[in-house]
Amino acid sequence: MVEADRTHVFHSWSAQASLSPIAIAGGLGCTVWDADGREYLDLSSQLVNVNIGHQHPRVVAAIQEQASVLATVAPAHANATRAEAARLITELAPEGLNKVFFTNGGADANENAIRMARQFTGRDKVISHYRSYHGNTGSAIAATGDWRRVPNEYARGHVHVFGPYLYRSEFWAETPEQEAERALHHLERVIQAEGPSSIAAMLFETVPGTAGILTPPPGYLRGVREIADRYGIVLILDEVMAGFGRTGEWFAFDGYDVRPDLVTFAKGVNSGYVPVGGVIISDAIARHFDDTVFPGGLTYSGHPLAAASIVATIEAMRDEGIVGNAARIGADVLGPRLRELASRHELIGEVRGKGVFWAVELVADRVTKAPLAAAEMARLKNELLALGVLPFTAENRLHVVPPAVITDAEAERGIAAIDAALSAMS
Amino acid sequence: MVEADRTHVFHSWSAQASLSPIAIAGGLGCTVWDADGREYLDLSSQLVNVNIGHQHPRVVAAIQEQASVLATVAPAHANATRAEAARLITELAPEGLNKVFFTNGGADANENAIRMARQFTGRDKVISHYRSYHGNTGSAIAATGDWRRVPNEYARGHVHVFGPYLYRSEFWAETPEQEAERALHHLERVIQAEGPSSIAAMLFETVPGTAGILTPPPGYLRGVREIADRYGIVLILDEVMAGFGRTGEWFAFDGYDVRPDLVTFAKGVNSGYVPVGGVIISDAIARHFDDTVFPGGLTYSGHPLAAASIVATIEAMRDEGIVGNAARIGADVLGPRLRELASRHELIGEVRGKGVFWAVELVADRVTKAPLAAAEMARLKNELLALGVLPFTAENRLHVVPPAVITDAEAERGIAAIDAALSAMS
Ligand SMILES: Cc1ncc(COP(=O)(O)O)c(C=O)c1O
Ligand SMILES: Cc1ncc(COP(=O)(O)O)c(C=O)c1O
Repeated sequence: MVEADRTHVFHSWSAQASLSPIAIAGGLGCTVWDADGREYLDLSSQLVNVNIGHQHPRVVAAIQEQASVLATVAPAHANATRAEAARLITELAPEGLNKVFFTNGGADANENAIRMARQFTGRDKVISHYRSYHGNTGSAIAATGDWRRVPNEYARGHVHVFGPYLYRSEFWAETPEQEAERALHHLERVIQAEGPSSIAAMLFETVPGTAGILTPPPGYLRGVREIADRYGIVLILDEVMAGFGRTGEWFAFDGYDVRPDLVTFAKGVNSGYVPVGGVIISDAIARHFDDTVFPGGLTYSGHPLAAASIVATIEAMRDEGIVGNAARIGADVLGPRLRELASRHELIGEVRGKGVFWAVELVADRVTKAPLAAAEMARLKNELLALGVLPFTAENRLHVVPPAVITDAEAERGIAAIDAALSAMS
Repeated sequence: MVEADRTHVFHSWSAQASLSPIAIAGGLGCTVWDADGREYLDLSSQLVNVNIGHQHPRVVAAIQEQASVLATVAPAHANATRAEAARLITELAPEGLNKVFFTNGGADANENAIRMARQFTGRDKVISHYRSYHGNTGSAIAATGDWRRVPNEYARGHVHVFGPYLYRSEFWAETPEQEAERALHHLERVIQAEGPSSIAAMLFETVPGTAGILTPPPGYLRGVREIADRYGIVLILDEVMAGFGRTGEWFAFDGYDVRPDLVTFAKGVNSGYVPVGGVIISDAIARHFDDTVFPGGLTYSGHPLAAASIVATIEAMRDEGIVGNAARIGADVLGPRLRELASRHELIGEVRGKGVFWAVELVADRVTKAPLAAAEMARLKNELLALGVLPFTAENRLHVVPPAVITDAEAERGIAAIDAALSAMS
């Protein structure tokens, strides 16, 4: 089977010859197993998406039930399951965000949020962080030849700034307060230098994820909101990875003093059981498109299987207190235990995060903060796999990002494995 | 329910206040019904995607079965169902195209095909037709700040040409041969003027779909292939709408004398039961990425539910001769009957297509070919809905694009409704 994979499947973000993928055959809760029945504790949530755990029975049943009724419907029609999914999502969102545009994943959620901001403001540029990931699309509409291309021709206008990251501050800051203040100063200076009236949106991950789970310092996001208001810029918060329980809140921004104009989501909204993403839209922006054509769309917008899995996921997460579990496990187990590891393992430069969203930053040298080399990171990954743990690594970091349903015992087992793997390395 | 839709669901390509969507609640084969049980013959295949018809029992069962085993897995791992889906797709493809990169839909299939062509050639520009649609994405990777942005910064370099369209020729052509020859001349002149060494890819729909089901004249696609070879340009054929039975062939290009380097697909591959798309990759291009990192990816690449539905769809379409049915119904019923309507209804300017992929172009005046006005098109649409037919209209055209499983009796019923609707208009 891995043979068939190597022959016919082209994998993302890789050189193909070097791959030796594990063949995942099944899963349940925080456990997955390969074709030979070997089990792994999933500390990755796959791509940080299986917030509800693997094979949650209510979500599986909802997909099966919807499949038996209606598996697909065009976006132009209305559909009861889709409407209910949208209603449930907006119920979780702050007041004044009442409409949802559904997409297939995170990238096209951001595409459409950017499109809305540009259409709404009549401006072009989008500011985002250097340390960010927002998705892999970027060309198809510009390649499109018909009228839908024309209002989307923004083949320029992306500006990047440094966000706050105290451990490797770009601003010579020494405290979180200083880091926030200086990052805001930098952001505002860039906006002024670019010309505020050219800037449609700021697109920021509430907690930059793949970039290192960079929990923002106090005041940063409130300051971003103030800058957005000052210059009439749309604030898009990307909650694709951080949303739906990951940080121990329904939305990561619930933990900060900020209200976005547009929210993009995917992953946790249905734990990826069916591909889906979307944009939650403020009333002001939604109203703009009451009489103005929105020039975006996709075949599977509001797909009924996706919608059914969203409804079941939100209901199950509510009924079972899964978001609260993520908060508790972060505060009581993952945070304290990871910090304890940091006190014993020289390789750990910093531990940061909340909920089930933790980064362990590994360094060759604590003083210079030189990142641990790639070969060492590969070794750490292999040690963890050998210990029956599926890890998530990114550059010189181990991201500890299990499903939000993880139990204390599973979390302790994961920590013990990380402890053992780090010991084996030194 | 439609109330909940209007309050919470944001729809594509529209001004939101003007919408009055039908509430589709279920379907079977070529029929769908609304929440009140009112039935419609689906001559739209929703968004021209339900090639196998609604609720095909084998595909539904495969989704339910896979949902019970494993609903999601990260793209980096291997998975048996995904490998089998890739194998089946490449089995249908021409020799020398042996790998598949899976995406969530058609737009990101094109995004990634363009990315492959640019990486492979080291060139930038992409030529496509003015009359084309390739998807709605175009900004998220340029908004991304980390290293994945850098090799994808192609915020320029899209060039458009006119393709062949004899009915409204841009080349003063009078025969299909002349149209093909002149369109090729135009294409080659643009390539020369842009600078051949700047051009990575030509991205063309094999049969432009949304643009009007513009079946290419004899020789055009063969000429395109020759031009691609002459200048070292990657030929991407977009089979998102035209592929998987729509034209009465597995791939639309099977009906023409052309072999692409990259094929993008979505829709018909699994009739949209689960959101999915992808790129079929030539050996030469796949080899390029053996030792070079491919800078693209997405969370749901190779999603197991999508893969299971692809496997079941291809097997059922094979076993049940569904592609052959599309060819036969086009040749025996849809083509002859639509042409017969054209002989009686002054409103019809041209009929063109094959398989279950037909355009009826409506004109206010046959001599000037002035397109039928939007208000008249809306009336036609409403007449058809009143007659229990779900139509697909685009600009001044009615696209007759039923599922490939349509029976003779259903096709006759559809034609009779179009006949009656056109009669009611005059
Ligand atoms: C913050 C963020 N935004 C967007 C995306 C893109 O989502 P997708 O892979 O579904 O396109 C990701 C994926 O990891 C992400 O982490
Ligand atoms: C030829 C073609 N390419 C690409 C697309 C985009 O596919 P999707 O809507 O799945 O992004 C479409 C959609 O209609 C299409 O017809």
